[in-house]
Amino acid sequence: MSSQPSTVQPGSPGRKQLISREDIINAALKLLGPNRSVSTLSLREVAREAGVAPNSFYRHFRDMDELAVALIDLAGESLRQLIGDARQRASSEQSVVQGCTDAFMARLHADDPLLHILLREGTVGSPAFKTAVERQLNFFEDELRLDLLHLAAVKKTGLYEPALTAKAVTRLVFAMGATALDLSEDQYEEFTHQIVVMVRMILTGTQALAQSQAGNVNSAD
Amino acid sequence: MSSQPSTVQPGSPGRKQLISREDIINAALKLLGPNRSVSTLSLREVAREAGVAPNSFYRHFRDMDELAVALIDLAGESLRQLIGDARQRASSEQSVVQGCTDAFMARLHADDPLLHILLREGTVGSPAFKTAVERQLNFFEDELRLDLLHLAAVKKTGLYEPALTAKAVTRLVFAMGATALDLSEDQYEEFTHQIVVMVRMILTGTQALAQSQAGNVNSAD
Repeated sequence: MSSQPSTVQPGSPGRKQLISREDIINAALKLLGPNRSVSTLSLREVAREAGVAPNSFYRHFRDMDELAVALIDLAGESLRQLIGDARQRASSEQSVVQGCTDAFMARLHADDPLLHILLREGTVGSPAFKTAVERQLNFFEDELRLDLLHLAAVKKTGLYEPALTAKAVTRLVFAMGATALDLSEDQYEEFTHQIVVMVRMILTGTQALAQSQAGNVNSAD
Repeated sequence: MSSQPSTVQPGSPGRKQLISREDIINAALKLLGPNRSVSTLSLREVAREAGVAPNSFYRHFRDMDELAVALIDLAGESLRQLIGDARQRASSEQSVVQGCTDAFMARLHADDPLLHILLREGTVGSPAFKTAVERQLNFFEDELRLDLLHLAAVKKTGLYEPALTAKAVTRLVFAMGATALDLSEDQYEEFTHQIVVMVRMILTGTQALAQSQAGNVNSAD
């Protein structure tokens, strides 16, 4: 028996003794691809990829559902961070929309498996996954709603049903993003332009509706 | 041996000799549920449900992919028929949006497996499925674009990028629909209202953008 300070147990090649929560998450991410849903991953498969026995898995996650929800939460946090950075760099409504869309599309283009999870697991898989995706989308909507309220106050434009406006933008961008997973290099720019125009339609629409609502209120005075 | 004129072969209970393309489609639809994607169906399973040997399957479909695409096409046609009927009954832009949304949500509420397929297979499964869903969505967008052009001509409102407007409405409604699969009875009305307001935002936005574009062109004269 050797006494080398290795994490690999002698006699069981590739099996580590100590493994972190992050190691398991990374193993799962490696197994996921553009056409593979979290719901098709097996615990055995993830444990094998991580180089541990299935028992070590249970030290960090109760079951595969808990791992899937952890992946979805991580995906949401990571994308919110990215969008938040893009938002801070932007100075006008126009550049916020363009900057956030660019950041979103760049991440999509980089084939980030975390983003794929977020775009896909909302429509497939267990109710637990869908709820987890829904919660992440709600976080986005909440941040966007506050942004829109802030911009409307600065620009003195109206905002018709801020929560619904934020929801429309978020759902549309995610739906478009889900279909963009298979785009070729030269289709990206046109696709990004399409999203930007669509978001402009919603924002222009919410401002026009608020204005006509305000007009109706004034004329009723 | 009996000589009864049955389609069930003696000795192989439940196995029919003759089976139509429709029988196979119906068997597949029976197996699909709100959380089950077409991509998880096996040929053996569908054949068993239809009560035939796998060989009979091949008389109608080359493989499971071809069956899945047939299901997606069928789902698209069926929904277009439904939306088309709702559209014909409506007389104004407002009632077109409300009528079509009501028809869509009623079908969703009826747990139509065909609609589930259309809402789900665009984000998961093989590239062949995604392409098939994309084609169906494009049909919707094309019909909606013509409707919008017609309404804009009648009402003398502008329409900014008709194709993109139709795409934004279609994608948003389908994205919202996909999240509505798990709604409870009492959430349906509020949800339908949300979709109607979102679509109004897009339509009001496209008209306002067209107007300001026309204004720019006029002032440049």
